[in-house]
Amino acid sequence: MAAEQDPEARAAARPLLTDLYQATMALGYWRAGRARDAAEFELFFRRCPFGGAFALAAGLRDCVRFLRAFRLRDADVQFLASVLPPDTDPAFFEHLRALDCSEVTVRALPEGSLAFPGVPLLQVSGPLLVVQLLETPLLCLVSYASLVATNAARLRLIAGPEKRLLEMGLRRAQGPDGGLTASTYSYLGGFDSSSNVLAGQLRGVPVAGTLAHSFVTSFSGSEVPPDPMLAPAAGEGPGVDLAAKAQVWLEQVCAHLGLGVQEPHPGERAAFVAYALAFPRAFQGLLDSYSVWRSGLPNFLAVALALGELGYRAAGVRLDSGDLLQQAQEIRKVFRAAAARFQVPWLESVLIVVSNNIDEEALARLAQELVAVGGQPRMKLTEDPEKQTLPGSKAAFRLLGSDGSPLMDMLQLAEEPVPQAGQELRVWPPGAREPCTVRPAQVEPLLRLCLQQGQLCEPLPSLAESRALAQLSLSRLSPEHRRLQSPAQYQVVLSERLQALVNSLCAGQSP
Amino acid sequence: MAAEQDPEARAAARPLLTDLYQATMALGYWRAGRARDAAEFELFFRRCPFGGAFALAAGLRDCVRFLRAFRLRDADVQFLASVLPPDTDPAFFEHLRALDCSEVTVRALPEGSLAFPGVPLLQVSGPLLVVQLLETPLLCLVSYASLVATNAARLRLIAGPEKRLLEMGLRRAQGPDGGLTASTYSYLGGFDSSSNVLAGQLRGVPVAGTLAHSFVTSFSGSEVPPDPMLAPAAGEGPGVDLAAKAQVWLEQVCAHLGLGVQEPHPGERAAFVAYALAFPRAFQGLLDSYSVWRSGLPNFLAVALALGELGYRAAGVRLDSGDLLQQAQEIRKVFRAAAARFQVPWLESVLIVVSNNIDEEALARLAQELVAVGGQPRMKLTEDPEKQTLPGSKAAFRLLGSDGSPLMDMLQLAEEPVPQAGQELRVWPPGAREPCTVRPAQVEPLLRLCLQQGQLCEPLPSLAESRALAQLSLSRLSPEHRRLQSPAQYQVVLSERLQALVNSLCAGQSP
Repeated sequence: MAAEQDPEARAAARPLLTDLYQATMALGYWRAGRARDAAEFELFFRRCPFGGAFALAAGLRDCVRFLRAFRLRDADVQFLASVLPPDTDPAFFEHLRALDCSEVTVRALPEGSLAFPGVPLLQVSGPLLVVQLLETPLLCLVSYASLVATNAARLRLIAGPEKRLLEMGLRRAQGPDGGLTASTYSYLGGFDSSSNVLAGQLRGVPVAGTLAHSFVTSFSGSEVPPDPMLAPAAGEGPGVDLAAKAQVWLEQVCAHLGLGVQEPHPGERAAFVAYALAFPRAFQGLLDSYSVWRSGLPNFLAVALALGELGYRAAGVRLDSGDLLQQAQEIRKVFRAAAARFQVPWLESVLIVVSNNIDEEALARLAQELVAVGGQPRMKLTEDPEKQTLPGSKAAFRLLGSDGSPLMDMLQLAEEPVPQAGQELRVWPPGAREPCTVRPAQVEPLLRLCLQQGQLCEPLPSLAESRALAQLSLSRLSPEHRRLQSPAQYQVVLSERLQALVNSLCAGQSP
Repeated sequence: MAAEQDPEARAAARPLLTDLYQATMALGYWRAGRARDAAEFELFFRRCPFGGAFALAAGLRDCVRFLRAFRLRDADVQFLASVLPPDTDPAFFEHLRALDCSEVTVRALPEGSLAFPGVPLLQVSGPLLVVQLLETPLLCLVSYASLVATNAARLRLIAGPEKRLLEMGLRRAQGPDGGLTASTYSYLGGFDSSSNVLAGQLRGVPVAGTLAHSFVTSFSGSEVPPDPMLAPAAGEGPGVDLAAKAQVWLEQVCAHLGLGVQEPHPGERAAFVAYALAFPRAFQGLLDSYSVWRSGLPNFLAVALALGELGYRAAGVRLDSGDLLQQAQEIRKVFRAAAARFQVPWLESVLIVVSNNIDEEALARLAQELVAVGGQPRMKLTEDPEKQTLPGSKAAFRLLGSDGSPLMDMLQLAEEPVPQAGQELRVWPPGAREPCTVRPAQVEPLLRLCLQQGQLCEPLPSLAESRALAQLSLSRLSPEHRRLQSPAQYQVVLSERLQALVNSLCAGQSP
């Protein structure tokens, strides 16, 4: 897999990618003499998406890239000047010109770790004016990345660890970068590969793809390829006219399947031959351009068997319409019978790929039967940064049971001592009238120092490493929290001191 | 409004922003000797989104930009080589290196015009291999843009022509460019402005924004601004301490409203004063950080009246939670009473802006009462390029009645004579067993030549011009097609010759 290298990511997340009110508020703070007040904001969500009890933290790598490059160029400042009042003090714009993130500190949940409602994904601190300008772009970079990664993780849980999951949603994405983000974070969340070539080039996501219906239907069967000959896989011996060889096999296949030899579409067969000439080691047949049973399947078998004679093994077939599960089961039966009939054992286990609007429900049905599934993650944004947030700077810990599974997350004030494993803690579940006690076997601090005064504290993990962390984290989550429908809610509790602070503020607010 | 200028748009839509199967098929065509075969594809959708009977065509400007810049760089070709079979003929990669769109011709529905199911938004013709590589990026650029523009047009129809609609969805967008695309095409579809500063800078979208809850709650009331003095609007006479002046007004306002003068939150008032010092000519109060009635509204009135004394008029208030309609109606009453009580007539008509997850239903309720609405377009992608498409190269016409409203769109073969106004035409509605006749008062060709052999045929309209076309087109659509719920379906009919071709192909396919 290529290393991550995105020289143009800076272009994708530019400093003016923000809501105008962040700039108008910046002017308000500046006019009030508060531009350099110490400030902190936390980014978190209120409810887990898709009705589940967990989410995955993602997008941190894009945030770090954005923050390190953050600087308002002359053209940016000029544009802001054009939309702010004409009599704005020029010193404000001088202040903007000098801004960067050299005084910004970020704590974050590591990429790919489990995230729960109310626990900050990011804590950003620094001078008030800068931190205000950063809010929208960081929200934009984290919300969608985490949503897609969570969606992918859910589909991976349904499919189990072995099935191959391919993401192919680019054509329906929210513009070019919407697609790039979706492909990147689907991979992080547990997909195996993407159809999006740019995600491969820029982010190192494994890419996959074969052929579309348009390729199949563009052949009539009367085409004459300039070089119809294919050399044997072993590289020795004379080449063979693949189309002619497939034609010979077609007769045997049709006899075996009880079909007339005229029934399979000659254009589809020509397309399969053309594809096999280009990809003899990775031949895949798209079966449903005409009729799966009367055309796609016999044509595939004819070409696959011709390839087999030359020592190549076909990679698989793809179905893109109809009842995917039922067809896949029938096709598997046909492959088994043909493997026996023609004494080609590998044919029995040829990959069956299905695609076409596969959501969680469809995948659950398919997952028991199939080996690879391609789909487009369905997204519904239910994250919502709280309008009323918990006060003060907070620390967050994950309390684990003796089997290593997370019991609950605990928020406390930053200045409280770190909770110790084996120690009894009094904590407040949300909305509880009484505290409860818990004695965690292990305690993990959740927020890691990521940027300190603008400096990266440790190298960011690779996308593949974050992907591995996501799977490890999910595997440790207890089944009742991991369940996708009606899961037990995972608790995020407050320390006694934080709860007391909340209580006093609530009392103070309604006199 | 700034001119459109996006020097980095090339970066956003790079040639490898495509599905890998487009590249594998390209190799397949090349191996089959068909790389330079003449080919054409059409991009259209099957159903109108959001349950309506119309869509708006959008995204063409991004397509044109993409096509004109399309060229595989060395790094792109090297990346493709790394994911294609290692023994691929090097001549294929030489072919890729030389590719551009100099032989590609595009016909398109103009930006902002009405689009109906089955009528091509884009017709792209050129050498088969190039055209195949272009399919995914063009789909990606057109689908989402058209969807967002259609959504915006529906919200505009609900709101009526006068209300101001502000888009502020950036923080929930699919990554940076997802947000940029949404902001751009919401404007095209009929919104007035966006919160997204980058959309203003790069695309010339008018931007708008004021302040957030975090600004309000960040003030305690004990802050001392470095310069509390505000000069009169006319520029003559001594400055006034705005905070002190607001405090004086607060007592009168509280007496008028029957509130204790301690009830309004001093931090909120300090925030309003700070904002008013920075934006005396554009002061807006966000009312719901604490209590609208006991704090936000009296604080706003106190600061607005203090500003008024200096000759400034407050711009408005914003509500971001609760029952927006009911609150807005009550607030209007308070404004009217205060305008009379304090003899400040302009206060009566101060803008009331509402925001917070406003969808079509909520907007319909609000639109009768309010003057400006900010919301995030809700998107649901229901467009789907057909797998089975109508055969042959087609021309498309809009048939209009004598009042200028569109009656139906007609598809015919490219070589058929152009239908004439006043002439009786025999056409086939979808699924009909018999043709019907229509005598259009006017006929408009729908697809305009946009790129010919890679050359732009006419300058692209500005975004604002496309926005105007959208509103004009919608105004001409008859009410039964424009209706948002259960509209009469707009018919797209086939010419007799095209219908005959479809029939013969269907007959040929199932022998």
